[in-house]
Amino acid sequence: MLPNICLKVSYDGSVFSGFQIQAGSLLTVQGVLEGALNRLYKKPLRVAAAGRTDAGVHALGQVVNYRAPFEIPVERLPYALNALLPPEVVVWRAEEKPEEFHARFSACKKIYSYTLDRAPYPQIMKRRYTWHYPFDLDVGAMAEGGARLVGKQDFLAFRARGSSAGSTIRNLYRASVENLPEQQLLLLTFEGDGFLYKMVRLMVGSLIRVGRGKLELTDLEEALAEGRPGVAGPAAPPQGLCLEKVEY
Amino acid sequence: MLPNICLKVSYDGSVFSGFQIQAGSLLTVQGVLEGALNRLYKKPLRVAAAGRTDAGVHALGQVVNYRAPFEIPVERLPYALNALLPPEVVVWRAEEKPEEFHARFSACKKIYSYTLDRAPYPQIMKRRYTWHYPFDLDVGAMAEGGARLVGKQDFLAFRARGSSAGSTIRNLYRASVENLPEQQLLLLTFEGDGFLYKMVRLMVGSLIRVGRGKLELTDLEEALAEGRPGVAGPAAPPQGLCLEKVEY
Repeated sequence: MLPNICLKVSYDGSVFSGFQIQAGSLLTVQGVLEGALNRLYKKPLRVAAAGRTDAGVHALGQVVNYRAPFEIPVERLPYALNALLPPEVVVWRAEEKPEEFHARFSACKKIYSYTLDRAPYPQIMKRRYTWHYPFDLDVGAMAEGGARLVGKQDFLAFRARGSSAGSTIRNLYRASVENLPEQQLLLLTFEGDGFLYKMVRLMVGSLIRVGRGKLELTDLEEALAEGRPGVAGPAAPPQGLCLEKVEY
Repeated sequence: MLPNICLKVSYDGSVFSGFQIQAGSLLTVQGVLEGALNRLYKKPLRVAAAGRTDAGVHALGQVVNYRAPFEIPVERLPYALNALLPPEVVVWRAEEKPEEFHARFSACKKIYSYTLDRAPYPQIMKRRYTWHYPFDLDVGAMAEGGARLVGKQDFLAFRARGSSAGSTIRNLYRASVENLPEQQLLLLTFEGDGFLYKMVRLMVGSLIRVGRGKLELTDLEEALAEGRPGVAGPAAPPQGLCLEKVEY
């Protein structure tokens, strides 16, 4: 049996056209990861990823797995791969997993963060990793809005149009809003068993409208209950979003 | 009399070939600042800067001044200029200063930080703003080394070769080393009345050799006392360095 290798990966999404490999010459995380594996093992390999993040979205704890054509000690793999990867992608852990492990289908929980820069002018070293949003926000109302999204329900209203079919039932365990005044940041955290296409960014966009007083909490609940696509959002821009962790 | 305008500026040095404008088509902070001022005032203008940072060096509190050909309310200037600047440069304050104010010659104190990333693998969102240095360091010895550099003295040993003549006496008020374990960072802070060319990065490089046990504190003091160029260093790479603040 070929070893089933699981990698934990961080990347700076600002230089990539998303995780998933695409036709043409676009730079993707999957493309550079598979390129490095190809050079290491001298064989074309495919990786499966826990979450196929969009263009501009970052990851600290993305998880991928692949079948290794031969054994390389897992403690050496991060160093060997990082030497072949651009500096915008870092492999920080490698483990051998049981035969049945799959980075996406075995995941039971994903944690995403979304960070707003609340400083009057953009914080230069946060610029690539936050959405600069200096306008007044009712953080208490946003937190209450987040709490009302939590639960196992149909999130059809928070799925981007044009995305593929399939169940839109998801279990959202947490949607919290935390003020970090010393860093002039507002941190939103979403934990769930899975997320629809653009669901986190649509939730962030909706909560910001709640914080601006432009969307009532009751309207947020109604949109959710009625499953009307197009009511939620608009989707917040990608650079504030980060796949923090995947649990199995 | 033309208004003497002082701007406080932050920038991401990773995309610039330094502050100072250069022959050819290199991207410089001065170049884009003067380009924005030129478009705003419809007239070529020159700026003077507190510190002409090297390629790759960042600033949170760079200070520049220029003579405005006509009055624009200072509270509007940051917005007007930021609209004309690339996102890697942010003007966050503008003030009118007395006729005699000069960003460089009037400065009485500059504060630089140098940040080491101490995580086992590079922290992806700190990558552009730190030097990844995961190797063992005796932080206590580094702090003691920093303390021995403090004072008004000849810093000839900490000036890069090939730099211009002039006095090499500087007053160093502070050279501290602070461990930030939660962020896995080591923060070095240098305050002085001025710094020689590459002086901070040469001090950082020397303190790291102290921390590695490869340079004795007595040798550090001797190099300083004897003013031998070439003993200090090697200079730490630019991306960990940031001009934090200039005082007048």
